[in-house]
Parts: sequence; C-alpha cells; structure tokens
Amino acid sequence: MGQSKSALAIHGGAGTILRSAMTPELEAEYRGGLSAALHAGWDILDKGGSSLDAVEAAVISLEDCPLFNAGRGSVFTHEGKNEMDAAIMDGSSINAGAVACVRNVKNPVKLARLVMERTEHVSLAGDGADQFAEEIGVELADNAYFYTEFRWKQLEEAIEAGKVQLDHSAYNSETQPSTTASSSKPFGTVGAVACDTSGRLAAATSTGGMTNKRYGRVGDTAIIGAGTYAGEVCAVSCTGHGEYFMRNLTAYDVSARMKYKGMNLEDAARETVEHLTKIGGEGGLIAVDTQGNLVLPFNSEGMYRGWIGEDGTSKIRIYHESES
Amino acid sequence: MGQSKSALAIHGGAGTILRSAMTPELEAEYRGGLSAALHAGWDILDKGGSSLDAVEAAVISLEDCPLFNAGRGSVFTHEGKNEMDAAIMDGSSINAGAVACVRNVKNPVKLARLVMERTEHVSLAGDGADQFAEEIGVELADNAYFYTEFRWKQLEEAIEAGKVQLDHSAYNSETQPSTTASSSKPFGTVGAVACDTSGRLAAATSTGGMTNKRYGRVGDTAIIGAGTYAGEVCAVSCTGHGEYFMRNLTAYDVSARMKYKGMNLEDAARETVEHLTKIGGEGGLIAVDTQGNLVLPFNSEGMYRGWIGEDGTSKIRIYHESES
Repeated sequence: MGQSKSALAIHGGAGTILRSAMTPELEAEYRGGLSAALHAGWDILDKGGSSLDAVEAAVISLEDCPLFNAGRGSVFTHEGKNEMDAAIMDGSSINAGAVACVRNVKNPVKLARLVMERTEHVSLAGDGADQFAEEIGVELADNAYFYTEFRWKQLEEAIEAGKVQLDHSAYNSETQPSTTASSSKPFGTVGAVACDTSGRLAAATSTGGMTNKRYGRVGDTAIIGAGTYAGEVCAVSCTGHGEYFMRNLTAYDVSARMKYKGMNLEDAARETVEHLTKIGGEGGLIAVDTQGNLVLPFNSEGMYRGWIGEDGTSKIRIYHESES
Repeated sequence: MGQSKSALAIHGGAGTILRSAMTPELEAEYRGGLSAALHAGWDILDKGGSSLDAVEAAVISLEDCPLFNAGRGSVFTHEGKNEMDAAIMDGSSINAGAVACVRNVKNPVKLARLVMERTEHVSLAGDGADQFAEEIGVELADNAYFYTEFRWKQLEEAIEAGKVQLDHSAYNSETQPSTTASSSKPFGTVGAVACDTSGRLAAATSTGGMTNKRYGRVGDTAIIGAGTYAGEVCAVSCTGHGEYFMRNLTAYDVSARMKYKGMNLEDAARETVEHLTKIGGEGGLIAVDTQGNLVLPFNSEGMYRGWIGEDGTSKIRIYHESES
C-alpha cells in the first residue's frame, strides 16, 4: 500500500441546533472551539504522528472547552454530579479502551487510552474506573473545574420540568419552553476520527451524558461498536440518541457494510444513517477510511463538525450546508 | 413466511473443562442443571409462547442453579461481593435491555428485561441499576443467597495467588495448582437463544463475572452486539474471554456476515469463531436462525451446552463430541 493521505474529522454533538437561537458571538465561540480541536489533532498528523495520538489530542481539546458536553462543561446528573463516558479505539491493532461514569477525571479520553494500554480489559466503570484513575496517576480535577453555570441551570430547569435532557437543548430553552428529550432530541458528545500517513485508523468519543439522568444509564459513547469503532477499513465516532446506536451497533455497522458488502465509505455511512432515520434514531457520525476519505452524515438539524482532508485546509460547519 | 420450527439452545460457560477433574457425580449435576433450563425454555416454546419468554425462562433456571457463574453461584469480586451482568434482546423489535454490576437482584436477566420494557434506555449500571430494581419491585436476594462455599474458596485462592480468575477454573484447581486467567482461560456465563413458531428470535446472557475482579471491569455479557444479540436473521449468546468479544462485536458479527455476505447461520458462526481463534480469543457461542437451525461452535476445551431442535428431543454436551 502506498502512503496514505492524512485526514481528520471531529464533531461536537448533533441535535436541534436552531439558527434562531444562535447569536453571531456564540457561533464564533463554537467555531473557535472546533478549530482549536481540529488543529490540535492535525498538528500531530502533519508531523507524521499516529492517528491514535491525533484523535486523543482533538478530543482532549474538545473536553477542555466548556461549550461542549464532555470533560469541562459536562452536564449534571439528577444528583448534581458529573458522570462522564469516553472510548478510544486503535484500528491497526483492533484494541480499545473505554470508561463509563467517571467523576473527577479531567480528560476521560486519556483514561480510556490508559485502560487500553495498561490493562487487559476493554472497559472499566464507576467507582472502579475512578480508583484506576487515581492509581494510574491520570490528572484529576475537582467538582468546581467541571462546573459551568449554564449546565447547572440546565439541571435545575430539567428537574423542575421532571425530565431528562440531552445536550444542546439549553440554547433552545432560552428562547422557547423546554421540550422533552424525546421531542427536541438534542445530543451532546464530542469525537474524532483520523487516518495517518501509514493508513492506520483511530476513533475516540467522549461525553458528559444527559442532564438530570438517573439510574446509572449507560449510553453508546463508551460502548465499542455502538458509539465508537475503528478497524481495518474505517474509523467511526457517533453522536445522537444513544439507545438507537446501541441496538443497531451503528459505529461497527459502517465497517461491516464495507467489509462484508464491499461498499465504499460514503455508501456504507449513508446506508447506516438511512437505517437510523428509518427506525427513528436521530444523530450523526463522522468516519474516515484508509485512503483518507471523510464523511460526516447526520439526520438532525445540525451537527457541530469540522475536518481537514487532502488539501490541508480546515472546514467547520454547524447546519446542513455545503461540505466542500 | 410459513410456520417456523421452534428451537432452543443454552450454554453454561466455556473454558478449560478437564475430563480428569470431572467426577461422574459432578457431571450428572451439570447435566441436570442444563436439562432443567432447557425444559424451562422449551415448555414455553412448545405451548406456542414467544422466544423472548423462552430465553428468559431458560436463563432464570441457570441463574438459580448454583453450579453456574450467574445469579446464585456467582463468583466474588476482590471485595467479596457479587456483581452480576445480564442482557436480553428481542430480535423481532430490535429492542434490548441490559444491566451491569448489579448486586442483590435474584435474577439479573429479569431486570434486564424490565429495562427493555419499562424504560427508554438500553443499559443501566451499578448503584443506579440496583435502585431501579428496588423501585420496579423485581425480586431481591440478600448476600447469603448468592453465597456458595465453593466460590468463596475460589476468591480466597485467587487473592492469595494475586490473580483474577474467570469461571470454571476451580475444578482444575482442586487437582492442580491454580493457573492464571490468561493461561487456563476458563469462562463463566450462561445464555440462551430461541426461535419460536412465528420465527421471532431472542437471546439472553447472564454472568457473575470474574473471581477477584477489580476496577469495575465491564465484560461482554451486558453489551449488546458483543456477548448478546438478536435481530432479523439470527440470535446469538456468547461465552468466553469477554475482551475479545467486545473488540470484535462477536455476537453482532454473526448477524452482519449473514445480512451483508448472504451466508447461512452455520458458515457465519464458523467464520466468526475462526476469526476469534485467529486473534487469540477463547470461548464459544450459541446461535439460531429464523428457520430454527441451531449451531453451538466453540474453540475451548469444553462448553456446557444443550439444545432442542426440530425433533423435539433434548441433547446435552460438555466436551467436543458429536452434536447429533
């Protein structure tokens, strides 16, 4: 195989992102956050680094940005705590690491990588994952670090309305009455996929979950094959109504359609999202193949996203717009 | 579609099951436990009941039998507690429910079904899942119910040896020094798959996890697509070294090979297990298609298993033996 073309795509969540509720200032902030993450990942690929390092760096940047529902800026559970999930997968080794319901880890995606590289396990959850974080020495952060006034208000509002909210709903709720998760369906997750010059693929996803969530609900983000997958033929990171992605193995399904049906990336990803639409699942995904082709399909009103492909220039989009 | 043929298969875990360590009395007990579970499920199918009810009944029977590492008889974590995982999936609706790390639920598979039917979620974990169990009123059991002297000795031995053990290792350890999980590779899980007369498919899996496990390790059992899957073309329940099943989406992969490559059940399951063998993953799976065809491939020394197919007679096997 000849030298592959480096490529990187990122997302910052999909859902009901209303133009009417977006100010120019806020849009500039989102674009700035996406741009910083894109360049954090691309700097690594551009210097010949690995796709695995690139997706980790991009997701760390998104976790550190309080605008997105992951790391700093994560939503609050019913008990007023942050419970975060993350996963990372290395397509060249088919190895993966995931953490679920971690509380004081500054960058959950870093912990997921340590699970992959330093344990014989794929997934650690809850108190055990926090204990592993302490013992392995990954950077922790106190509750105040994760706190954002905006997310706290979102919780208070959700408790008052007696509902579970997902991610990007708050900007709507400033301008209109809150809607239930099942009607407004906004989703908050960040993710990245990359191909490096050796054609190695990697994917990473991180989320703060759902506002006002209870009962230890596990979403798709930290489940290999549901919200995150990287293999020999493609790498995929999803964002959306997690339960649909879990039942349909959405991330792995793109890969399965390519491997077993012989489809190209674009057709496989389109079919996968069409199937999601058919069954009522809302959201989107970003995916890359070993040739550095990128696709970013979604069936919601918007998806925060950006990519750098063959020509080395970065593109950032929020709504359904021209991808060129 | 004409009337389908009812079919049911169950497993009680795969691994290093040594004939030399098996007494006739013990083997008779295992066969009795498998036979009871098989008939609990078959009674439902035979009366025209659903595959979903049949797999739940079969798994409940195996959870109630202290010989198997699920429900009563579950292994102990490092802290001397039982943490159990279970999942169930209805192929006719592509709906699924799962619970992870639940502690005092008598039959985790029942709770998984309640997650599927009574919540909008697919998966609940840890304290939240236990809280849901209390609120929904599923039968609980105290620690003494789950206690078996045999499993407790297994924990003491594992702590002394400083290792994590999986399921069926103890019978070896009575006759030879304990070996590490990675060398003896014994796995403990129970599961069932079924096809009913309407051609509806279902799968369920339940496990007590690994002896002496720490850090909130999440295995494949409760992950839809990894250890458990039911869809339009097949239903699958896995048992083995969970991390390999998670990275490879083993349960869903059988379905994907059938749907996208047009393979029949037997070839798809064989390819899936061959791939598992190639990458060093040990274990097995049971699977059924909409015609009532059954397969039970495994690459370990033994797999506790049983099935009732077209002719209505039950078969029970432990080692590599004729399946007819």
